Amino acid sequence: MSKSDEGSVPPDTREDIMEATFRALSEHGYSALRMRDIGEEMEMTRQVIHYHYDGKQDLMSSFLEYIIDQYEGSVEVDGDAPPREELEARVHQCLFGPGFEEFSHWDRMKVYHELFTHAQNDEEHRAIFNEHYGRIRGSITEVVEDGIERGVFRDTDPERAGQLITDIIHAARGRKLSLGHDDAPEQAWRSIDEFVVDSLLADAERSDAERSDLDGSDA
Amino acid sequence: MSKSDEGSVPPDTREDIMEATFRALSEHGYSALRMRDIGEEMEMTRQVIHYHYDGKQDLMSSFLEYIIDQYEGSVEVDGDAPPREELEARVHQCLFGPGFEEFSHWDRMKVYHELFTHAQNDEEHRAIFNEHYGRIRGSITEVVEDGIERGVFRDTDPERAGQLITDIIHAARGRKLSLGHDDAPEQAWRSIDEFVVDSLLADAERSDAERSDLDGSDA
Repeated sequence: MSKSDEGSVPPDTREDIMEATFRALSEHGYSALRMRDIGEEMEMTRQVIHYHYDGKQDLMSSFLEYIIDQYEGSVEVDGDAPPREELEARVHQCLFGPGFEEFSHWDRMKVYHELFTHAQNDEEHRAIFNEHYGRIRGSITEVVEDGIERGVFRDTDPERAGQLITDIIHAARGRKLSLGHDDAPEQAWRSIDEFVVDSLLADAERSDAERSDLDGSDA
Repeated sequence: MSKSDEGSVPPDTREDIMEATFRALSEHGYSALRMRDIGEEMEMTRQVIHYHYDGKQDLMSSFLEYIIDQYEGSVEVDGDAPPREELEARVHQCLFGPGFEEFSHWDRMKVYHELFTHAQNDEEHRAIFNEHYGRIRGSITEVVEDGIERGVFRDTDPERAGQLITDIIHAARGRKLSLGHDDAPEQAWRSIDEFVVDSLLADAERSDAERSDLDGSDA
């Protein structure tokens, strides 16, 4: 077990270290980052970092949980709207979520996407991202399930629909960040609405037999 | 203009250098990569690299074009199938494309996704990825256009549909690589088929008035 587990770091100290890590990461990128770069972003002595964290790996895992908590905290939505509106509200939170402290949603997402790609090579980060991914997908899946129960959406695998929407959100953010497509998030919602929501809504009005006639999707 | 422009590197030499770069990148990752790591993967003296390339940035841009050419080369498909089958063939090529030399499709894609994320910080790589993205999206868009012209798909913006499908492919690959979801590519095609192709096919059978009644997507 690492030193940083079980809340042993006082909240204010953790916040200072995490924000310093964020600034250092934004400046240097993940692979080039050294503990001393983080120390230089702090007002406290950098011995504080070494006191609370067992090196870069431990600090980075804690940081990953920190930005994921911020992201997920931004996706809380009141759950009483009709399914399409509820879906829109949640997707918008994921795509356009608010900034925190001095950094914007997109500053956060830039670091988030860099760590996501880096998880290719890091089992611990992969495990943290997988738990997070499950929660985000779950929040979307829940709305689809509710729509099916209320007879507004057709009967389908809600988890597959939730996964598809989560993937579209992720890809649109990546396209904005890596390719500079600033309209990608807005396009993503319009595509989710035109294709996914359309398909969920439309088929509730048609019989199963008619549907499998039309699309042959079981072939 | 860099030394590597206009085909001045003999093809066999370029191939050797590119494959050495690929091996070194797979081992060290992009940010930690030094020119000498690439030299160590080559049979020829590493002076050959310095003779043909102006440093790491020039070499990496050339390498990015090399792996993109391989990827795009794998997406060539005969264009005479019905639109849904044609779409399936192209999406499958993007998701499961063949390996080259000693590396698999996924070894290639791992490096590709790392460079994609790094393009956040690199204008030259961003420009190369944008051209590539335009071609891949174009190859999907073309099939949607053809389906609309033949009356098999409903009337919609084919570029938006092409973009959505391209995004879903990209996200599924990223999920397999970063989160270890080995079934993500297979799920991606099933989702594209169930939702996007379903929506494209189904609405061709319904009137526009009925459609806007059902989904209210112009709201």
